[in-house]
Amino acid sequence: MAAAAAECGEESWVLTATARSPTNIAVIKYWGKRDEALVLPINDSISVTLDPDHLSATTTAAVSPAFDRDRIWLNGKEISLSGGRYQNCLRELRRRARDVELKEKGIRIRGEDWEKLHIHIASYNNFPTAAGLASSAAGFACLVFALAKLMNLNEDDGDLSSLARFDPTIFFCPCCKGQEVHVAACMVDLSSGKWEMQDVKGNDSIAVQLANESHWNDLVILIAVVSSRQKETSSTAGMRDSVETSSLLHHRAKTIVPERILQMEEAIRSRDFTSFAQLTCADSNQFHAVCLDTSPPIFYMNDTSHRQGLLQTIINSVERWNQVEGKPQVAYTFDAGPNSVLIAPNRKVACLLLQRLLFYFPPHQDNDLTSYVIGDTSILQEAGLHSNEDVGALQPPPEIKDKAPHQRYPGDISYFICTRPGRGPMLLPEDQALINPVTGLPK
Amino acid sequence: MAAAAAECGEESWVLTATARSPTNIAVIKYWGKRDEALVLPINDSISVTLDPDHLSATTTAAVSPAFDRDRIWLNGKEISLSGGRYQNCLRELRRRARDVELKEKGIRIRGEDWEKLHIHIASYNNFPTAAGLASSAAGFACLVFALAKLMNLNEDDGDLSSLARFDPTIFFCPCCKGQEVHVAACMVDLSSGKWEMQDVKGNDSIAVQLANESHWNDLVILIAVVSSRQKETSSTAGMRDSVETSSLLHHRAKTIVPERILQMEEAIRSRDFTSFAQLTCADSNQFHAVCLDTSPPIFYMNDTSHRQGLLQTIINSVERWNQVEGKPQVAYTFDAGPNSVLIAPNRKVACLLLQRLLFYFPPHQDNDLTSYVIGDTSILQEAGLHSNEDVGALQPPPEIKDKAPHQRYPGDISYFICTRPGRGPMLLPEDQALINPVTGLPK
Repeated sequence: MAAAAAECGEESWVLTATARSPTNIAVIKYWGKRDEALVLPINDSISVTLDPDHLSATTTAAVSPAFDRDRIWLNGKEISLSGGRYQNCLRELRRRARDVELKEKGIRIRGEDWEKLHIHIASYNNFPTAAGLASSAAGFACLVFALAKLMNLNEDDGDLSSLARFDPTIFFCPCCKGQEVHVAACMVDLSSGKWEMQDVKGNDSIAVQLANESHWNDLVILIAVVSSRQKETSSTAGMRDSVETSSLLHHRAKTIVPERILQMEEAIRSRDFTSFAQLTCADSNQFHAVCLDTSPPIFYMNDTSHRQGLLQTIINSVERWNQVEGKPQVAYTFDAGPNSVLIAPNRKVACLLLQRLLFYFPPHQDNDLTSYVIGDTSILQEAGLHSNEDVGALQPPPEIKDKAPHQRYPGDISYFICTRPGRGPMLLPEDQALINPVTGLPK
Repeated sequence: MAAAAAECGEESWVLTATARSPTNIAVIKYWGKRDEALVLPINDSISVTLDPDHLSATTTAAVSPAFDRDRIWLNGKEISLSGGRYQNCLRELRRRARDVELKEKGIRIRGEDWEKLHIHIASYNNFPTAAGLASSAAGFACLVFALAKLMNLNEDDGDLSSLARFDPTIFFCPCCKGQEVHVAACMVDLSSGKWEMQDVKGNDSIAVQLANESHWNDLVILIAVVSSRQKETSSTAGMRDSVETSSLLHHRAKTIVPERILQMEEAIRSRDFTSFAQLTCADSNQFHAVCLDTSPPIFYMNDTSHRQGLLQTIINSVERWNQVEGKPQVAYTFDAGPNSVLIAPNRKVACLLLQRLLFYFPPHQDNDLTSYVIGDTSILQEAGLHSNEDVGALQPPPEIKDKAPHQRYPGDISYFICTRPGRGPMLLPEDQALINPVTGLPK
């Protein structure tokens, strides 16, 4: 430290880089690795990046000759950096770090200095970390991105993705829950992002952008956040079990997904919502089918932590609606956790969807509507829902009108997030840094 | 009628044939037809026939020149015979009926007389029809068998199976719920019965016996009867949807099942319980995976009519037990309905299984133990369970001892049936006929 400081000129400067990474939702899902050691996914996947205004992590990485050890703060609270994931990440990034020279600030760091300089990291999620929505994933992605910028890494986006793979205990998982490195990669450059699997071993798992966030920006995404209870099977263990025991998984990876990837790319390219929705729903169901075909079977979709049939209620109501209309109105997709993601083609249908969701799942009476539907709350006004009374007065959707009783489940959903496709990770200007440029500590 | 009576000699005789058909449980499951018109199954299946003492239908078919119309009584109550299934069945059987001559009784029926003679049928199930345990299936199987005997059909067992296929609205389904014709066939000649699919079209779906009921008679089968609510998706419609929309189904039928059939045959032949249990559990889970891969998805295993995670509680407890012991202790299998079937290799393990099941699912306090565990009730004594108090005092299974809390679910299961493999359909002597040989009406 002192040595590093001496080498850098003894000034007490603090250099920061701040990045913001959104979370994303896989519509063609990845489940399983084809190479455990190289952490290579068994099949391609396609994800939609969500608007960082609603679901993102912001991370500032700072370096200073005055820092005497690496430190990290998550949502304002210092946590341990001793975990293998962080240590591997920092080691690998330092190995690739390059010269930085900012003459106007009198800062000069040589590539080899990074081995001795210490780092402060501050990260913040703009959505509840308990939501099971890849909060640590978004944070880790952001960390990689911010550090890479701070250290002046000469990596193109694809390389950044592969860089994020250095921890062999972490999988590439589009579901973004505990599968941080994949997400790290996703978040580097995806809006509607595709995980492309190539034949070269080692560095062949890269993320490529299919379209930017303005390509299909009338999509509306509603996320029903269910519960924050720990899932019963970790994705890491579940994936390994599926690869080892599910014969359906291998057929899916080899035969079904390659075709679906092409179809989904075409659906996204041509903004064909019917096809997009059919593929999204089918792939979500097939992912859970593969989980069920695993020995022992994995039940993500009916985790005992929430009410019997909650997610089935959502699926069944969407399927019934789609069936009555003769074509998909909305798409649903469920990852390896309890939350459900619903995608509508436009605001008008999103309003109809929200009315349906709030019909089935009204807020608890002591829960205000504005804290029950968060994110892009303007959807509430557009749907004519200004109060809990408006929700209480909602009529059953036409497609179930004749089917009594109309069951409603107040309190089963913690809250809804309304959002839209968004842009991938971005650098933020210096004044948005989470670390004070004088003290080197979180603001 | 009068004409027929005249042709048969005007005597007022009543001729009866009585058959008893057990129900069965598929351990390699069939789901989907490869030919809708010919009602051919998309893959082979293997079923275990259950002891008719516990789960069977008994049917008497009677003919008399005095009968003026076809009539049927089910469990003592007359029901309509006008349904297509019955009409097709009777028509097809009459077409194949042959001469019957019983000189000592003065009875002579020529093949062509059957077209004019009328039939009385009486059928009785020795298990609750509400149990969803193929009660109508067993009844229909029995009807075919009894009528075939009455009419002196010259059909070998395989032909009887195919004969049972004449109603194209009925599938061949090993799950035995509403898929009567298949069961009819199964019940003709199966103990551990295999549905063999051959290449010849038309009459190629036949049932063959892999082993008789004494081959592996130390198996103990425990059935947890959950609820009698109508299932949400009929097997007929569900199967058709799966064939049309699930790509996993076709891979399963083409690639996975043929291999499993061979493995299961070998497991049964060599009484290899480890292999039998692994295949049984894997195939049950894969069947439900295919249902989930269907569009719209089918959720038999977590039908909203019963408590969240009830069947998962059973699966998880079996999986944990099997895992702790290092090899399968018991097998589980779930059909297209809410009941679960558990198979233990012997009485000793069956007692341990029953203790576990009653630990998780004790009877309601106003439910007596002897009406809660029915069938082969001697298992209760062997397991040291003589009263509800004994059940209340059950300790958590060792494999979950360290995991608090130990949740118990009184009342979630309606009752258990303890049974064993049994022999296929059989004829019963005249004195066990359900129809009075003088009046021609149910006794």
